Amino acid sequence: MIQGIGASNGISIARVRRYEKPEITVVEDHNIDIENQIDRFEKSMERSIDDLEGIRKRMLESANQETADIFEAHIEILKDQELVSGVRNKIRDEAVNADYAFQSILDTYITMFENMDNDYFRERAADMKDLGQRVVMHLQGIEMEPLSNIQEEVVLVAKDLTPSDTAQLDRKMIKGFVTDVGGRTSHSAIMARSLEIPAVVGTKNAFALLQDGDMVILDGTEGVVLVNPGEHVVEEYQEKILALGEEKHYFKTFRDKKSMTMDGRHVELGANIGGVEDVDSALANGAECIGLFRTEFLYMESKVHPSEEVQYEAYRRVLEKMGDKPVVVRTLDIGGDKELDYLKMEHELNPFLGNRALRLCLNTPELFRTQLRALLKASRWGNLHIMLPMVATIDELREVKGLLEEIEKELLEEDASLGIGYKLGIMVEIPATAILADVFAKEVDFFSIGTNDLIQYTFAADRMNEKVAYLYQPYNPSLLRLIKMVADAAHKEGKWVGMCGEMAGEVQALPLLMGLGLDEFSMSAPSILRIRALLSKVRMEDAAQLAEAALGMENQEQVGTMIKQYMDKLEDSNG
Amino acid sequence: MIQGIGASNGISIARVRRYEKPEITVVEDHNIDIENQIDRFEKSMERSIDDLEGIRKRMLESANQETADIFEAHIEILKDQELVSGVRNKIRDEAVNADYAFQSILDTYITMFENMDNDYFRERAADMKDLGQRVVMHLQGIEMEPLSNIQEEVVLVAKDLTPSDTAQLDRKMIKGFVTDVGGRTSHSAIMARSLEIPAVVGTKNAFALLQDGDMVILDGTEGVVLVNPGEHVVEEYQEKILALGEEKHYFKTFRDKKSMTMDGRHVELGANIGGVEDVDSALANGAECIGLFRTEFLYMESKVHPSEEVQYEAYRRVLEKMGDKPVVVRTLDIGGDKELDYLKMEHELNPFLGNRALRLCLNTPELFRTQLRALLKASRWGNLHIMLPMVATIDELREVKGLLEEIEKELLEEDASLGIGYKLGIMVEIPATAILADVFAKEVDFFSIGTNDLIQYTFAADRMNEKVAYLYQPYNPSLLRLIKMVADAAHKEGKWVGMCGEMAGEVQALPLLMGLGLDEFSMSAPSILRIRALLSKVRMEDAAQLAEAALGMENQEQVGTMIKQYMDKLEDSNG
Repeated sequence: MIQGIGASNGISIARVRRYEKPEITVVEDHNIDIENQIDRFEKSMERSIDDLEGIRKRMLESANQETADIFEAHIEILKDQELVSGVRNKIRDEAVNADYAFQSILDTYITMFENMDNDYFRERAADMKDLGQRVVMHLQGIEMEPLSNIQEEVVLVAKDLTPSDTAQLDRKMIKGFVTDVGGRTSHSAIMARSLEIPAVVGTKNAFALLQDGDMVILDGTEGVVLVNPGEHVVEEYQEKILALGEEKHYFKTFRDKKSMTMDGRHVELGANIGGVEDVDSALANGAECIGLFRTEFLYMESKVHPSEEVQYEAYRRVLEKMGDKPVVVRTLDIGGDKELDYLKMEHELNPFLGNRALRLCLNTPELFRTQLRALLKASRWGNLHIMLPMVATIDELREVKGLLEEIEKELLEEDASLGIGYKLGIMVEIPATAILADVFAKEVDFFSIGTNDLIQYTFAADRMNEKVAYLYQPYNPSLLRLIKMVADAAHKEGKWVGMCGEMAGEVQALPLLMGLGLDEFSMSAPSILRIRALLSKVRMEDAAQLAEAALGMENQEQVGTMIKQYMDKLEDSNG
Repeated sequence: MIQGIGASNGISIARVRRYEKPEITVVEDHNIDIENQIDRFEKSMERSIDDLEGIRKRMLESANQETADIFEAHIEILKDQELVSGVRNKIRDEAVNADYAFQSILDTYITMFENMDNDYFRERAADMKDLGQRVVMHLQGIEMEPLSNIQEEVVLVAKDLTPSDTAQLDRKMIKGFVTDVGGRTSHSAIMARSLEIPAVVGTKNAFALLQDGDMVILDGTEGVVLVNPGEHVVEEYQEKILALGEEKHYFKTFRDKKSMTMDGRHVELGANIGGVEDVDSALANGAECIGLFRTEFLYMESKVHPSEEVQYEAYRRVLEKMGDKPVVVRTLDIGGDKELDYLKMEHELNPFLGNRALRLCLNTPELFRTQLRALLKASRWGNLHIMLPMVATIDELREVKGLLEEIEKELLEEDASLGIGYKLGIMVEIPATAILADVFAKEVDFFSIGTNDLIQYTFAADRMNEKVAYLYQPYNPSLLRLIKMVADAAHKEGKWVGMCGEMAGEVQALPLLMGLGLDEFSMSAPSILRIRALLSKVRMEDAAQLAEAALGMENQEQVGTMIKQYMDKLEDSNG
């Protein structure tokens, strides 16, 4: 058995395919023709950029924004004029071969970044090595058999997989992968989860231990690899796979049912989407609404600011597809860790506490107006809910309301027959807003609690920072008290309150959140049926008791223990 | 009249002294002796480092940690081996003069940083220019008359002042300064405030408009410069200066009075200190306690981790000087924007949400143990209160309590006669902690609310980031509700609650905070008497009404208006 870090859930049983890259050697050669070398260099750069554009596009098509961003960064480095003219000049000045000129200039950059003695820049150095390899392979005409050529079902085993490697994985053939290095947040781990390929990373020596053709059971949930397991171990795992399949089947029976507790309390279960391409999957998974339409993908996928027309089309198509069902469109949530090429953003020392989301929109009114105009124009096509991210004060909300009134008037002057109708709500993801929810509730149609950010700010801890990741505490009573304040404030004014952070799709959270009074949950589409199935077994009386008890507890651990007891009991009573 | 940005409060009337640096030219020269040039280069580097060490030391002595850090960074750049050997190699390889070799290599760095297209790196480029100028001046033997030579009272006028310039200002002679560039947060503005020199920055053209010998009135509060004013304008401003002086005199009459409202409610007014050198000023300003002893200066002033013995001495001296009066010592609050040379800290994307203060201490137990041992050993010398910064969960608090018990046992085993006695409290500066204050109140002796951070986290806005500085809202009802929660929770358990953020020393905040129930305020020593004078005019009944009303308001503006009305009334009724 090889122990590693579970990077992507699921179980696979298949034979090992080892994957190793050729060693590339670059030698200095002055016996060359300068123009010919420059030509070679330029062609290799073009090919590399083409490769990368292709990968980036595939990633965007499969909605892997994070991965697409990585390749976007690679492309930008290759297009850097200082690098390109540096190599050209070196070839000319020193009459040296292109491979050598390119590699030595790139090495200067890499050394510089590596010496910078901080993780962020060291990662940039790793990026440069990855793309340097690509360019030199093109220069030397080395062709590797692309991973996408693998035509049998295998578990891939490698020392490391670069983002470019992982991007080529075909999930029909690659049943899972195992690497020696990496952690849960490494690029390849992130990609494995988004491709839904089970993966175990950080095994340290799997590549040395495993041979081509070894039979392995890869358990991405537990982070283990069983090598050449005995027959009854295989049977046991086959049963597990079967059980997972059956569970999936059971969940499917909830597709057309209402989202209802055992004792008849109805809530709405919605899907988070990034664009119209996600709507089919949302509906196939039984979504009753779109609880979060992240419009930033529209902006990030584009090289220029998407026009009013482009946006109008995007919103209209989603609204039409969803018909009467509510579509909650979040206005542009950019900044923080998300950037746009065509929007100049200043470097911030603490981007999560910076000029992001609504703040940036209010600071960049042209940008915001275009989106609001497109939304209002599209509103006639469905059940539009506009949702503002990162609202911190009532003044910000009122500023937007003023803007919306102005735009509505403007649009009706342009075309009096335009039917405009929408609801306006806010994300509650800043502590100040949760605490003053009673004031906000009077002036909005709905709330949606964004737990990811709300937790970060409530505990003053960046969840991406491993050193303080222990402070990501969704079950801490202080967070639960904030949720309760928001729900009570909303209900007092007859408004509904939803949740669209990761917590909204967590099975353990559901009974507690029901008890706190939430009316809507929005999550990734594949989670909906599991949550609906669970909901059907929950009694509101129990949920209320759970919530009441949790609010008086001291820490996350106590709440966790109580929930576990409740869930165990629930499972027992349902056989 | 010249309009600029008020960068440091106060009024000065004096004649103009213009200040301009010589243009420095560097020419390429190959007619040189290589070893001689290397020698010149090394001597100039040494001299520059000596200069900078000297300035850095002076800054530390006057407790200008922020400025000292700037010069620390300069020194580090000059000590960078890549730079030094780069220049040496260039002199040798190209047989070129040191000035040229140094300048061209530095320029590569500067260009690189300037091209990085973000403010942080552009500031680093400015630092490099500043120190490059210093090195080249040493190389060329150019001596500038140091600003510290100015022997008459003047207002200094310059296009810009570098940190090295500002560091040389003698506040006996330099009555104020005016620059064309800069903002409230530029290095020179920060220094002006810490040196208490009135300053107006960002005037755009003052250097062109003003002549040596012009008489000016500089109003650093309003951000204006009056040029060659008429006689009665001068008189008017002289009266203002006089009034400021009289006010100061009036405040002095409160030095030995108790801190008491008109109707007899007593609170404690304490001083924030950075070390034993601040205690005299605290007592001279009538401090009843040390409400915040920032121990990080002990660590930042040292090149190595301060030993238990060094720390023990530092704590003992403060405790002894204060006698029975409480001394609230905050354990190491490093990380975020504060670093230590001898402690390896990783680069963090959001340092304010990262591994800082107590988190870092719990992650670095050797470091923390040394401080706690020193504190417990010193406790016999006075009235020690230990205060933990950035507590987010009750588990963190309990971890520290366990550690303290362990250390106490350990110390008593080493010396049974050691008298150990102290109170333990926490800073409340994270929303989660304020919301769960009832849980914490059972397990601490006191709270102190750190408003600077609490506001940042509550509104998810970095107060140093100009784009979101509008969200630094101490008077927003949501913040006031948090303060109320903390005060109520403390009192319910019979514990006291103080405040040690900037808000604690703000005149407008005092009546409101009294109404919210605070028991102690700690501030910069010069603010104490002004606050005590105001306190003597406040009635608790009014304060309670203010607080009650504020908690039900919608935004900071409403609260501000109410406070202003109250303060105006107070002033009227007191003549």
